[in-house]
Amino acid sequence: MTMNHTIETILQHRSIRHFTEQQIEAEKLKLILRCANAASSSSFIQCSSIIRVTLPSVRAKLAELAGGQAYVESAAEFLVFCADFNRHQQIHPAAQLGFTEQTLIGAVDTALMGQNAMLAAESMGLGGVYIGGIRNDPKLVSELLALPRHVLPLFGMCLGYPAKIPQPKPRLPLSIVVHQESYQSLDNAELEKYDQHIQAYYASRSSNNKQTSWSDQIRATLSKESRPFMQAYLNGQGFSTK
Amino acid sequence: MTMNHTIETILQHRSIRHFTEQQIEAEKLKLILRCANAASSSSFIQCSSIIRVTLPSVRAKLAELAGGQAYVESAAEFLVFCADFNRHQQIHPAAQLGFTEQTLIGAVDTALMGQNAMLAAESMGLGGVYIGGIRNDPKLVSELLALPRHVLPLFGMCLGYPAKIPQPKPRLPLSIVVHQESYQSLDNAELEKYDQHIQAYYASRSSNNKQTSWSDQIRATLSKESRPFMQAYLNGQGFSTK
Repeated sequence: MTMNHTIETILQHRSIRHFTEQQIEAEKLKLILRCANAASSSSFIQCSSIIRVTLPSVRAKLAELAGGQAYVESAAEFLVFCADFNRHQQIHPAAQLGFTEQTLIGAVDTALMGQNAMLAAESMGLGGVYIGGIRNDPKLVSELLALPRHVLPLFGMCLGYPAKIPQPKPRLPLSIVVHQESYQSLDNAELEKYDQHIQAYYASRSSNNKQTSWSDQIRATLSKESRPFMQAYLNGQGFSTK
Repeated sequence: MTMNHTIETILQHRSIRHFTEQQIEAEKLKLILRCANAASSSSFIQCSSIIRVTLPSVRAKLAELAGGQAYVESAAEFLVFCADFNRHQQIHPAAQLGFTEQTLIGAVDTALMGQNAMLAAESMGLGGVYIGGIRNDPKLVSELLALPRHVLPLFGMCLGYPAKIPQPKPRLPLSIVVHQESYQSLDNAELEKYDQHIQAYYASRSSNNKQTSWSDQIRATLSKESRPFMQAYLNGQGFSTK
């Protein structure tokens, strides 16, 4: 078997930002969470927690701090995925924590869980979007969710029934993303083709139509600082101190 | 539709460390890579690269540095998933790089790609295992794969046709992993039940039978340092310098 339901689900991914008011059935939500929990865990350390937020007042604050993303407030479900070594410290108060390596483990393992949750949801006709915007103000997120030291909120996830399904956004070609044997520098002809492809995609899409290439976007994004407070926040939470 | 092929694939996950000699068909490998590439990307920054390693001499060295994991050498495919901002620097030489936030984006987005690849493979009857062991000697990995500055090797992945399929390993219960509204401290009764469950699992499994609980493992693992060279390596590669 080559093409199958799983692969179709994966390839049809697009972020959903418009949801109907329909709630997610309890059984489906449970399956999504079980799927999240089935992901691989580095050395079986199981260092992730998911905070399910339903309180409207908290949702409203999270929507605002994420940059005014209204769907954080209105989506049927909003889950905050965290790297969590606090659990381990409760088990072993003398645990050696704070290693940068543990931040990497936490980020990777928690993202594996996130993607399982996203795909499980998508496979049942739901849609969702990752909300990196919770990292705009990780201190406030920590307060709102009562996150103790050694817990790091990495991303949020809105889930619900799609009201609008956009086209999938064309990704960089595999010829650029996949390298054979060793790192290959960027093939400018391939990049040029991709930039034209993306320009055509933005020009033709039904909403939020714009005139830009991927390289243009990268130049704009990376001319700015990228959440320069993150190192201090991590350190304050007991991450990446050594 | 609730239970479906995607959810079954996700829930049946177990790491495969024993492979037959069968190669992966080119068409299937291509689908796996396309699936990896279909994952969400934070602000569409597309900061991941995959290095496909087939050279036996390099595979042998990677297997050794990963702690003598022979399947890194023998699996049909071995892919190294990297956070990659070097591509962006090629496009925009003045790009602002080195932010800790970018390390988080790189780790999360690259892991989303990894999990798509893993599930696509599993959905077609293949199996695989994540190899965090490549972080035992990230400098040597960087040399072997000619990784330039701003490229961070995060994990490897062995893929192939399973020769032995172990039982899935019981995960922490959702009552511990999922928190409602805010962070809940560990429920010791739930942990105790889980520890007994894991102890029974280890005692009964067919190979690598042992006598330990999850809490015991955590106490042992976290009494040791966790790759204490990682911060210096990251900084040397141009990550998390600010």
